[in-house]
Amino acid sequence: MPISKLKQSKERREHLLECSLQLFVEKGYFNTAIRDIIAESGVGTGTFYNYFIDKEDVLKALLDGFAETIINGIKDYYIVEESIPERFIETKRITMEIFAQNEKLSEIYSRVAGASAPIDQCIKAFEDKLIGFYSGNIEYGIRKGVFKLIPVAPIAHSILATEKFLLYKWVVLKDITKEEMINMVVSFHETLAVGLLRNP
Amino acid sequence: MPISKLKQSKERREHLLECSLQLFVEKGYFNTAIRDIIAESGVGTGTFYNYFIDKEDVLKALLDGFAETIINGIKDYYIVEESIPERFIETKRITMEIFAQNEKLSEIYSRVAGASAPIDQCIKAFEDKLIGFYSGNIEYGIRKGVFKLIPVAPIAHSILATEKFLLYKWVVLKDITKEEMINMVVSFHETLAVGLLRNP
Repeated sequence: MPISKLKQSKERREHLLECSLQLFVEKGYFNTAIRDIIAESGVGTGTFYNYFIDKEDVLKALLDGFAETIINGIKDYYIVEESIPERFIETKRITMEIFAQNEKLSEIYSRVAGASAPIDQCIKAFEDKLIGFYSGNIEYGIRKGVFKLIPVAPIAHSILATEKFLLYKWVVLKDITKEEMINMVVSFHETLAVGLLRNP
Repeated sequence: MPISKLKQSKERREHLLECSLQLFVEKGYFNTAIRDIIAESGVGTGTFYNYFIDKEDVLKALLDGFAETIINGIKDYYIVEESIPERFIETKRITMEIFAQNEKLSEIYSRVAGASAPIDQCIKAFEDKLIGFYSGNIEYGIRKGVFKLIPVAPIAHSILATEKFLLYKWVVLKDITKEEMINMVVSFHETLAVGLLRNP
């Protein structure tokens, strides 16, 4: 494909994703039909199916891009901060800020889990990507002798679990403010970090 | 009310709750109507409304009883184990065993969150009860000088968040076994406990 065509194709996919996200937030994921997405985006029916198989495929693409954004945000921080304990704590602040900046997508993520098997698989792909990345970072700290040799998977799961739970308290329940959400996630990791460190 | 009447009333409420839970699992919470509960339990329509306002009220009662079961299970362990660090870790094993023994209720809990505001409030009441109890136990450890003076709420939230997330991985996704779920929750708390202890 020539570069201009490729760019156009990418932009069209991005446009479809943006319209979908808008509709998922306005009408709810379950009340949005593919024909709504097609109408909102102004593309032909065939065009939609050039990019996506079904609605779950759109959700999957949205969450996949979201995981990339979070991981890239963390990687950017790694360039400026070398201390492993500092990274362990401060990257959680960055993660929660990215969740907060992408409020619409955060709300979809927080609301749709448990509803059906295909949706659960979309959520699982998103979460597995993050858990895998978190695990890699903890393993790096172990290899460098900064962290103790502890089982990594339970810690990586607890990190995402805590982020997810406090995100839900903010974005769905409105029970805590954005600042409280961020501060609670960071505070938890300050305590947890002591349990991880070889020499606290 | 005479004792025999009171007993009959309690038993009838219990019977309605059991029938509801059965239906919620078989048909899904959202596909179960109050008339289904009435038909399944064989009581009159008026009888149902003597005990519950609506379907959310049934869910609330089920989750409320579930929280009591978990808290009582933990309290029973406190009678046999005095060590605060040991309690901090081992009560998580007990909690996850209670979740596992009540698989139906665990599945409802894991599936319904985020679907509607009234349901979110049922879930929140259940979770607040557990988080409040967990907080009280950590505060006790701080008062006794066993735990450091750390912010309690983030830790209490991370405990429930991790339990909830790994429960979901077992009961909804079937991605881990019951034993893996329990072991991961316990392992996480072993690491976290070191971060809490004044003298690890």
